[in-house]
Amino acid sequence: MPVNDHAPVQITAYNWVPDFARGFVRDLRPRWACEEIGIDYSERLFNPAAPRPDAYYAEQPWGQVPVVHEDGLEIFESGATLIHFGEKDERLLPRDPQARMRAISWLFAALNTIEPSMMELSTVDIFAKDEEWAKLRRPGLIRFIAQRLDRLSDALGESTWFAGDFSIADIAMTTVLRQAQHTDLISARPRLDAYVARASARPAFARAMAAQLAALGDTPEPAVA
Amino acid sequence: MPVNDHAPVQITAYNWVPDFARGFVRDLRPRWACEEIGIDYSERLFNPAAPRPDAYYAEQPWGQVPVVHEDGLEIFESGATLIHFGEKDERLLPRDPQARMRAISWLFAALNTIEPSMMELSTVDIFAKDEEWAKLRRPGLIRFIAQRLDRLSDALGESTWFAGDFSIADIAMTTVLRQAQHTDLISARPRLDAYVARASARPAFARAMAAQLAALGDTPEPAVA
Repeated sequence: MPVNDHAPVQITAYNWVPDFARGFVRDLRPRWACEEIGIDYSERLFNPAAPRPDAYYAEQPWGQVPVVHEDGLEIFESGATLIHFGEKDERLLPRDPQARMRAISWLFAALNTIEPSMMELSTVDIFAKDEEWAKLRRPGLIRFIAQRLDRLSDALGESTWFAGDFSIADIAMTTVLRQAQHTDLISARPRLDAYVARASARPAFARAMAAQLAALGDTPEPAVA
Repeated sequence: MPVNDHAPVQITAYNWVPDFARGFVRDLRPRWACEEIGIDYSERLFNPAAPRPDAYYAEQPWGQVPVVHEDGLEIFESGATLIHFGEKDERLLPRDPQARMRAISWLFAALNTIEPSMMELSTVDIFAKDEEWAKLRRPGLIRFIAQRLDRLSDALGESTWFAGDFSIADIAMTTVLRQAQHTDLISARPRLDAYVARASARPAFARAMAAQLAALGDTPEPAVA
């Protein structure tokens, strides 16, 4: 298990989140990357219900997780942490220039083309689910996401991963697609459904998920200090 | 003017868009990057009102622009094209490891933390502006974006750019923030307002904007072939 208090890589994460967010916090991305290439990391945990220490806002302007530290490098935004770990190990990001840019293109496709709609879906289905506007918005949003996912399924085709071998693009895309797992948007598309199942079956994914859930604990919301 | 039909770099773009999109299409990002470092590029233009040629969906799964070709490399997603041009020239992405990861962190902050809300704002204020849900959603969305921008303004502080010298992070952040220019979200925050003005005053921005507008032409919607 790569969680190791003395590891040179440190990842920030939470020590509690509401049930709907368990397994979906974005520190899962750098954890998964570390697990794929066998890098130990330590955790620095925050209570999301309390303000972060003032100094943390200099590391992450919105007080969010993850921030990764390694050997004097400080990196925020999960996408940037994936670039970092990809550049450490070609099992996550190939060295051939075209293969590398293909993986980076798909990384941005996950985070800048698909995830924005998934974020809106989380607002509609979770944060604002009892609001009138959310009920009125939902059908159009589902249609929009469905169109995006139809093209995504076509692009994957019979391939196993989005950019040749498994890469940081698949870490991003899998964690993005999982954000719709409470709907039939993925299960209705066999290629995407099989893709998410295939990615989630990787031992490194399972270890990263177990580590996030272990950090979150199994307790009610911790008291704000 | 770096638009040159024989240039080794090719950028895909549109030959027409509705008025609200003029100056906001994402090919502005790689155009601006090329202008900053004096790289000539050619254009491959599509009519957005017509289906793209079938083969284009293999380059860009959603048929969108931009796609960049250079010396056998094919890159989609504007964020990925910025990484590509940044790696060509340290005027866009520093070589020092921490400075480089800082710029990449801010690139993702623009595209994965700020832009998703801006996309939702465009839906609410443009595509769905006459729908009841959009009117009901707008106040909460504006409050959410305002909180994000307050932190962004704090993070910029008295700095000129987000990650040391001007970089691809500023190309992304400026083009993202401009998506709110029909509101007072930026003008009400003097640091961000000055930042967007400073970035937009760069000669390379002006040339990129002129090139996009020239490609879009000054004509009504072209007929679908």
